[in-house]
Order: sequence, then structure tokens, then C-alpha cells
Amino acid sequence: MAIEEEPAARLTALLETAGRLRPLFESGGASTLLAGRTAVLAFFENSTRTRSAFTRAAHLLGLNVLPFDAGISSAKKGETLRDTALNLAAMRPALFVVRHSAPDAPRQVAGWTGIPTVNAGGGAHEHPTQGLLDAFCLQREFGRIAGLKFVICGDLRHSRVARSNLHLLTKLGAQVTLVAPPTLGFDAGWPLPAGASIAADFDAAIPDADAVMVLRLQHERMEGPFLPPGGEYRARWGLTAARAEKMKPGAIVMHPGPMNRGVEIDSSVADGPHSVILPRSRSASRCAWR
Amino acid sequence: MAIEEEPAARLTALLETAGRLRPLFESGGASTLLAGRTAVLAFFENSTRTRSAFTRAAHLLGLNVLPFDAGISSAKKGETLRDTALNLAAMRPALFVVRHSAPDAPRQVAGWTGIPTVNAGGGAHEHPTQGLLDAFCLQREFGRIAGLKFVICGDLRHSRVARSNLHLLTKLGAQVTLVAPPTLGFDAGWPLPAGASIAADFDAAIPDADAVMVLRLQHERMEGPFLPPGGEYRARWGLTAARAEKMKPGAIVMHPGPMNRGVEIDSSVADGPHSVILPRSRSASRCAWR
Amino acid sequence: MAIEEEPAARLTALLETAGRLRPLFESGGASTLLAGRTAVLAFFENSTRTRSAFTRAAHLLGLNVLPFDAGISSAKKGETLRDTALNLAAMRPALFVVRHSAPDAPRQVAGWTGIPTVNAGGGAHEHPTQGLLDAFCLQREFGRIAGLKFVICGDLRHSRVARSNLHLLTKLGAQVTLVAPPTLGFDAGWPLPAGASIAADFDAAIPDADAVMVLRLQHERMEGPFLPPGGEYRARWGLTAARAEKMKPGAIVMHPGPMNRGVEIDSSVADGPHSVILPRSRSASRCAWR
Repeated sequence: MAIEEEPAARLTALLETAGRLRPLFESGGASTLLAGRTAVLAFFENSTRTRSAFTRAAHLLGLNVLPFDAGISSAKKGETLRDTALNLAAMRPALFVVRHSAPDAPRQVAGWTGIPTVNAGGGAHEHPTQGLLDAFCLQREFGRIAGLKFVICGDLRHSRVARSNLHLLTKLGAQVTLVAPPTLGFDAGWPLPAGASIAADFDAAIPDADAVMVLRLQHERMEGPFLPPGGEYRARWGLTAARAEKMKPGAIVMHPGPMNRGVEIDSSVADGPHSVILPRSRSASRCAWR
Repeated sequence: MAIEEEPAARLTALLETAGRLRPLFESGGASTLLAGRTAVLAFFENSTRTRSAFTRAAHLLGLNVLPFDAGISSAKKGETLRDTALNLAAMRPALFVVRHSAPDAPRQVAGWTGIPTVNAGGGAHEHPTQGLLDAFCLQREFGRIAGLKFVICGDLRHSRVARSNLHLLTKLGAQVTLVAPPTLGFDAGWPLPAGASIAADFDAAIPDADAVMVLRLQHERMEGPFLPPGGEYRARWGLTAARAEKMKPGAIVMHPGPMNRGVEIDSSVADGPHSVILPRSRSASRCAWR
Repeated sequence: MAIEEEPAARLTALLETAGRLRPLFESGGASTLLAGRTAVLAFFENSTRTRSAFTRAAHLLGLNVLPFDAGISSAKKGETLRDTALNLAAMRPALFVVRHSAPDAPRQVAGWTGIPTVNAGGGAHEHPTQGLLDAFCLQREFGRIAGLKFVICGDLRHSRVARSNLHLLTKLGAQVTLVAPPTLGFDAGWPLPAGASIAADFDAAIPDADAVMVLRLQHERMEGPFLPPGGEYRARWGLTAARAEKMKPGAIVMHPGPMNRGVEIDSSVADGPHSVILPRSRSASRCAWR
């Protein structure tokens, strides 16, 4: 699935289900609902972090994990994705978790196999579970999502997280303001959902925001034609200590990670009072669950 | 173990055991017989597909999986296979699953350690569990194996699957006809088991067959001295749509995968009415379980 | 933790706990104490053998395993160790197992996250669980550790195992004699714990020893400036058959593995009557559990 196509009611229901599972997660328990069944983690594109989160989630649900690392598999032998998926489906997993460079791969796997399939990142398109996690965090922090003012700043062009958050939060009634360097924004004419707007000035967007999400600047874009040289990225689009000081009391800072401290976010902000990026101690984990 | 050395009665007993486990598999259940015990998957030769199938099978039996990826292990540090095996044996696994480029490695591991060891592919010799799976499929499709006419076409020389099927099916009373390009057949003088024969003409073998198994043509053999150029492989040894039309009603097409569609098998045949290669839908998985 | 800093009473308590778990291990059982919880195996430095042992130990305790292979993870994307650790901590594992090239990494992870963390090897410093395993073996073989005469011979300089054994066994009252080639000993002035001494002559130390531990000679040191050429290493510092004949009855030979047979230990010694390195048969596993 992609957030863009889901009705708000289904997204809200997913967040409510997550809320019901949270006490089990917090207590270190595990559900027995799916005990003994198997989740296939089919990562055609590597992501240690996302794979770890899904592994942990599988444990929470009592599922066994079958890690299918496609990088060293039949895909290299010329097998089609459909054949690989049907072959795995013959093993009768309870569900697939699919990450692939092709945006439509998770949906295709679901269609070919008839087995429930979770989209763990497709192409440069969406990363729905990260979006849901962020919405879950906002819901816990503010008790609501409707009416919140949410700012996303950074490399929108290459960010699955930005797309999923954009669609999810606007569907649930938040106002989303997007800020990006000129070469890293959405294409001109890309259809913004209702509730979203583009701003040129990061500084102007900050004082009013309930939450500011900073996106990772990928290393290969830190130099070269995409960006001006030196520390100018930080100066114009980084969440510096000076900018964080202009945030409202109670406003939060988010980052999907991994962070480049000192580039898109100052270290003091990442560890500061507004940040919900990392658990600060055992008892104060706040939103961090990814 | 190797199929070649096992008595027919033991092979039949294994198929019956598989039959008793099948309802559990189909219902999404898991046995508790081996719950809490550990299966070591010692793959000294990589195979994502086979590893996945054994992982799933371990889950079905309630076993934990210890993936021992020998490619990055002590084998590279000059440790002998015996030392590696005994070291793992000291961890007291319930069983080993061994895949190795040396044909005798699984038997050696069993001998050194005294721990039950499953052969998941040894050298260019055998792949017994794939053979058992194929026999299980035939048993389910036809209600018997004795008397069936089974054709295997392709790269016999490098195929573990062909050897295991050849021995297993002839032991259980099937007639096996082997077809291969001249450079990819068994060596002259290789002792065929009773019930097996070699045929030069694929077309002549098809109309009478109950089952046709097509073998994967490995990419490195698609060009060069082994084979004539161009699409001639498909023309002479591929299971084309035209050939499939000459199959008997009820006859089935098998392929151990991964398939090169358009080379050794036409795509329409792989997905056609005779094929049991892939599950066609959630409710019609037929034989596919590997 | 590092053995060096732990009081003897705590180390003794750990060995007693291991003794209480041993019958469960031997019977093929599994504890349910931590059932459904997750152990994160964060290996920032690869070790198939150590990872396998911890995986098996997790199964014994009923834990699910989340393998976090840092070699292909965010560490490569410039994420700090602290950020990686806190991110994983947000998944609320029951414990971390950390192996890292930096000696202090396991302690840091524990401090940052507040989650119990096992040191599975840090820098060139310690490998505490290997030391505990060896002490457990000695306790089982001799019924005591105090008063034992323990000899360690080989590449002390690069051996975490030597350091952990040295600290552990002297704390528990053994006498430890260290033998090393001149270029592979501890630095001059390195503070030896009470109960330890350095000997130049391996032969002189052997007749009196209750246990002799031979260390692996790493391949990259088998030639070059560290060592004299040819078989001279074996001649002077190898546990040859001739040397093993001078051991006391009942004395044992240990090696943390993987062994270079014919270099630091003769094959006949590794498999001989003094050796507890490998399980000799299903019923006589003695110490081997790593």
C-alpha cells in the first residue's frame, strides 16, 4: 500500500491498532496471535535499520522471521520478481515485507501471491510505515494530528519519508509546510495535496510550527551540482541551535535518521529539549520506535 | 544422506511423514515437538532459495534457526571442516543442515558429530530434499509414483536435482527418460539405474510422459563451447509452447527454479495448464513447496 | 563489562549461574524466562563463531535474535555509535550483545541506553565471555580454579582471550604463566596482575601445568617481521606432540579456535587425550561450548 491511496479512516484505524499494541511492546511482552507463523522479509534493497525494526515488530507479534536477502539471491540469476514472489509464497508465509527499488513492487507481490504484504519502502515513492510511525508519535505528543502545523525541511526530491508524511498528515488534517533547496524540491507541477504548501524561507516557517522534521542529506549530495559548497547547506536549511531557539515551547523536532550531525541538524538540537528523535533514557523513550 | 544409497522403504517413509506434516503446514500451524531446539544451517555454499526453504521448514517444526554463513567464517581462516563442525556440535544443535561444494561433506559432518544432518546439496552430486519434494509432488498429483513416465531435459551434467530425481524416482518404480545436449549429458559409462534410459530426441519423449522436468540452463553456459549459439538451445531442448501442446492431458511440467523464461522453458508453458512450478493462486498451490 | 574490573565474587556468581543452566542446555531444553523478548546482536566487527554462540545462547534463554550487521548499516552512512545504539534501544530489546573494534564500545552502549549489554569482544582488549567459558571448563574439569597452574602460550599481544583469561583466572586464585615470542608479548611495563608471571621457556612451564592454552597464530603474522621464518614458530612455541608428552596426567589442553593445526598446535595434540578443545563424541563433550 501507499499512504497516498489509503482513506483517512483506514490510516486512523492503523494508528489505533498500534496504540493497542503499545502496552505489550512497553512491557516486553509478545503476542501469541501469529505464533509459529512466518514473516518473509524480502529486501531487494538493503536497509539494516528498517529490517531491524520489522524484525522486532515480528517478534512482538510472535512471528518467526525468514530473511530473504535478495541481493545474493535468484534475482541475480535472472529470475523475475513474480517468479521469486510466487516461489516464496509457496512456503506459505503469513505475510511479506517488501522493500524494492521499484515503487510498485510491494503491490505487485500482494497481487501475485494473495498474501498480505507490507510496503517497507518502494522506489523514490513512499515509506508508509515510517509515515505511520511519525504520525503515531505526533498523536502521542499532542493528542491529535488535525490542526497541527508540520514543517518538513531538506531533500524532498529523494525522500520517501517526506512523501509518506506529506500524504498522511494532510489526510489527517495537519497543515504541512515544505522547505527545500532549489535543486532538491519536488518537480514543478507535482500535485501537492490539500493542506500542503511550499515555503522558500525555513526561518519564517519555524516559529509557528508544532513539529519540524529535518531530512537526511545524503552524502553523495553534500558536494557537487546539487548544492552550494561548504557549510552553506547548514546555514540555509539546517536546523541550527539558533533556529531551534525560535521554536514554540512544546514544539518537537523529528528526523527519520540516520542523522548527519552538524549538517542538516545541530548536535545540540538533536539532543535538545525539543527533540523526540532518540530515546533520552530508559524511562523517557517518547516517540522513538522505528 | 544421498538418495542413491537409501532403500526405497526409507524414502517412502519420508514421503509419508511429509504427508502427515502437510495439514499443519497448510493450516499455518507449527509443531511443538522440537520447540526451543536449534537447527544449524551451515551453508558453505550460498543458496538463498534453499536456505529460505529450510528456514521455513524449521519454523514449521518449532525449531530456532542458527544461520552459519561459512562464506565469512573460520573456513576462510584455514580451519578444517571437521574442526568447524565439532565446534558447532559443541553448541548442541538438534540438527545440521549442510550445503557444501564437496559431495561428501554432509555425511562427514554427521559422522564426526553424531548429530542428525540433512544434506542440502553436496558438490555436483545430489540435492536429496529437492528430489523428495518433487516425488512428493508427483505422489499428490497422480496418487502414485510407480509406473509413471518421467522425462528430464537439460543440463544433466551439472544438475544435483537431476541425479537425486533420477535415483529417487527409479527406486520408487517410475521410468525416467533423460534428454540433454551432447556436451551437457552424463559422462559416457556413467552407470544409469534400472528404469532409466537416455533419449536423443526430446520431441519423441514428450507425448508419452506423465511429467516433464526442465532444468535450468546456467547463464555461464548460455554462450561458449558448451552450446551452439543463438536460440538453438530453446529450439532443440527448450520446453516450448509447441512441445507442451503435445503433452497428454493431465501431464505436468516441473522446473526446480530459478527459471530462464524463454530459454529452457517458454513463459506460456511455465504459467500454463500443465505447470505445477508455481502456485497459481492462494487456494491452488498444488505442489509448490520448496 | 571487562573481566579486569569485575570483583571475583561477581565472576564466581556468573559461573554458578552457568552451572545451573547447563542441565537445560544438555537436555536440549529452553528457558521461558525471556520468551518473546529480543536480543540485539550488534556486531560492528564480524565474528561468525562468536555470533553463532550468542545466537544459540539466546535460544537457550527463549530470546528472539535481532542480528544487526553493522558492516552494512548506518555506521557506513556516518551515523555515530551513540545514535545507532539509541535508535536500536528505542526498539526495546531485552539486551544488547556488542562486538566492536573500540574497547570501550560495549560499556558506552550500556551507558547510553540503560539496557543490559554483553561485551562480545572489544578492541584488542577483552573477550570476557570466552574467558568465562574457559573458567567454566576448568571448574568442571578440576572442581576448582584456585591453585591451578595455567599456562598461556602464543600471540599475547593481539589476544583478547589471553587478557580475559589472565584477569579472570588470577582473580579466582590460579597461577598464570605467560609465554610468547619476543615480538608478540605484552608491552614492557604492562602491569601484570598478582598471580601472573612471564616465562621465556615454554618447555620449562609444561610439566607443572594443570592446563595449557595455546593461542591462534594469525595468518598475517605467520611471515614477516613479527616472526622468524619456516617452522621455527612451531619448534619454539608450538604445542607439539613431544611437548604434550611431558604434561602431567589429567592436565588439559585448550585453544580458543580456530586452530592452525601444525603451527601452534600439532594435530595429534588437538585430538589427543589431554585436549578439551573439541567434543570427542556425542556423549563426551566435556568443556566444549563456545
